[in-house]
Amino acid sequence: MPQVSQKGNKLPASAIRKLVPYADAAKERGIKIYHLNIGQPDIETPVEAVNALRHADMKVVEYTNSAGNMSYRKKLCEYYAKHNIHLTPDDIIVTNGGSEALQFAFTVCLNPGDEVLIPEPYYTNYNSFAIQTETTIKTIPSYIENGFALPPIEDFEKAITPKTKAIMVCNPNNPTGYLYSKEELQTLASLAKKYDLFLFADEVYREFCYDGRKHFSVMELSEISQNVILLDSVSKRYSACGARVGMFISKNKDIMAAAMRMAQARLCPPYFGQIFAEAAVDTPQSYFDAVSKEYDLRRKTLVEGINKIDGCFCPMPTGAFYTMIQLPIDDSDKFCLWLLEHFCYEGQTVMLAPATGFYSEPEKGRKQARITYCLKIEDLQSAIKCLEEALKVYPGRIK
Amino acid sequence: MPQVSQKGNKLPASAIRKLVPYADAAKERGIKIYHLNIGQPDIETPVEAVNALRHADMKVVEYTNSAGNMSYRKKLCEYYAKHNIHLTPDDIIVTNGGSEALQFAFTVCLNPGDEVLIPEPYYTNYNSFAIQTETTIKTIPSYIENGFALPPIEDFEKAITPKTKAIMVCNPNNPTGYLYSKEELQTLASLAKKYDLFLFADEVYREFCYDGRKHFSVMELSEISQNVILLDSVSKRYSACGARVGMFISKNKDIMAAAMRMAQARLCPPYFGQIFAEAAVDTPQSYFDAVSKEYDLRRKTLVEGINKIDGCFCPMPTGAFYTMIQLPIDDSDKFCLWLLEHFCYEGQTVMLAPATGFYSEPEKGRKQARITYCLKIEDLQSAIKCLEEALKVYPGRIK
Repeated sequence: MPQVSQKGNKLPASAIRKLVPYADAAKERGIKIYHLNIGQPDIETPVEAVNALRHADMKVVEYTNSAGNMSYRKKLCEYYAKHNIHLTPDDIIVTNGGSEALQFAFTVCLNPGDEVLIPEPYYTNYNSFAIQTETTIKTIPSYIENGFALPPIEDFEKAITPKTKAIMVCNPNNPTGYLYSKEELQTLASLAKKYDLFLFADEVYREFCYDGRKHFSVMELSEISQNVILLDSVSKRYSACGARVGMFISKNKDIMAAAMRMAQARLCPPYFGQIFAEAAVDTPQSYFDAVSKEYDLRRKTLVEGINKIDGCFCPMPTGAFYTMIQLPIDDSDKFCLWLLEHFCYEGQTVMLAPATGFYSEPEKGRKQARITYCLKIEDLQSAIKCLEEALKVYPGRIK
Repeated sequence: MPQVSQKGNKLPASAIRKLVPYADAAKERGIKIYHLNIGQPDIETPVEAVNALRHADMKVVEYTNSAGNMSYRKKLCEYYAKHNIHLTPDDIIVTNGGSEALQFAFTVCLNPGDEVLIPEPYYTNYNSFAIQTETTIKTIPSYIENGFALPPIEDFEKAITPKTKAIMVCNPNNPTGYLYSKEELQTLASLAKKYDLFLFADEVYREFCYDGRKHFSVMELSEISQNVILLDSVSKRYSACGARVGMFISKNKDIMAAAMRMAQARLCPPYFGQIFAEAAVDTPQSYFDAVSKEYDLRRKTLVEGINKIDGCFCPMPTGAFYTMIQLPIDDSDKFCLWLLEHFCYEGQTVMLAPATGFYSEPEKGRKQARITYCLKIEDLQSAIKCLEEALKVYPGRIK
């Protein structure tokens, strides 16, 4: 029997995925689970954009342009211009979700053995793209004490080797909820310039910034425009994670030409998703205002609730809809599993993502978990209550 | 300025793509082009399936299961059972088009340096997936004289080295239109068994078999069930190339587990496309009968028309909607370009795919082109007339 490839064997199964069967079993026992573990918003997708798809002429569901429909890319230029990002359609390749944009970046920018510097904790799935391309993720620690602000630029510089080819950030950050400032990004830009590195930025949470903060995009760093690769997606913006419409964006024409050859090999991005996403660009500001207000309320509810629990600490996130919490526990993998296997409070429990998977060394995340605030307020309150009660009785509680 | 990776530079731009700007320029000069170069059917997508999408409840366009919706995978089991392919939902991962299924196969089955044996001419895009995974495509020649039947099994066996890890076929074949028989596939199976090789089969044209022939799937080769990877797609089946719904299928549980980790990294296949594709499984047989009758007529019109042109030869294809033609010309790249740049007959011309891109050595395809019969009869007749007139005046014509 022929065997799985080395890469195939190395591909990680995420810590959250391992918990899924236990969550299913708990549900079968009749337990209600509050999912603080996943970034699947419960917010309604803009109905106008869905209706545009319902009413589109779809006689022949044909291949679209490999770079995405021209009409959609033009519309995207309008969207980006509103965010002070000035593009032409040639700067954009529409992808099968932000995930494919990541795959393009890792493949056309990096050679096997190359290193990418990423502040940790970081989005676990980056590991899979690194394994697929035989590249290495090298992490620069950020810390819960200052809300996971960008590590000092010297820490990045010290980590640079001849193999270093790119710096990568997710802004606002998944899993930390930290919004990098213009100044922080400028320090990264100067480093990228000095060492001629790519700067990859995953900005899929651009719209989710709180307390009046404004998002600053890497595309605004005009002095390193040839180094910048923007990875984007409609998933979170329009609560349309299933549309699988992302974007690979760069002003570097050689990179775009190589990415285009990759795009042609896989033929095209989705026809239905693009019709939806093109209409979604016209989503009225009132939708975002309402969503933003709702998330802001959820954020405060969650963070304030968590910080009231004895032994817990959770920084106030400034963007996205995630935050990391510090817990008075022995081991977050054990605790998250125990919540599903052995705990219930008034027929309910809570599911968290163990932070071990978000660090290069699981040890660093042993006492942390990532939580999302994608649930409505009442559910968040019940989830917090569950967590509080759980920590009172968890056998691995430490003081 | 940071540079494109080695893989990025190696990724091929297809011969057809290079012609596109010339086709655009011809259109701008007011010339009507008959596209015999692409496999984009003009057949209408089943309206019932499109309507199922129009009327679906789509409040939150959320992530689907990474393996695809369970309801869709169950429905797919029904579809396959009708084709004597017996599956459970666990044997299926729904992908972003057949292209992603190919990417999964190359990544989880092959190590860098591994070789895949493929009869040539072959589908050009396989090259891109080989480059991305640093694997090598080794071709076994098939010939126009016998309609591109499977090469003798000894030719495959002679090509096997310690690096050989898989045999790959596209059945019915793109670009040749040849339908491999049960017996031909059984000889491949015996070889796969003897040398413990994977057998990859791209069966996206399963429904397109002519003259009463029946498709035999590699999934029916039960003696090598652990070696077989089926790559499939709804693109051609339902004239829905833009839906981007494909399938990665295997009975090999280790392979499925590795592919599942890849599927999780890219989150999920498209939500809209899966709603459409699930409904499409119920497309009435009358749709396929009508489509099949239409393609059969087109096939005969095209092949008979081409064979009447002095100096041309074209075998009668037995499946898919492609065929290769032998032309009395010096160089198919030059000829296909000349058709767009310098030729027109009554304000019209024809676009063909030079065969050079379908062979490991361009020389082998120098006097051949691939043509498709995705156009309606009248257009095919006009296209044939254009080709006939073009060959009368083409400066590189040879006798």
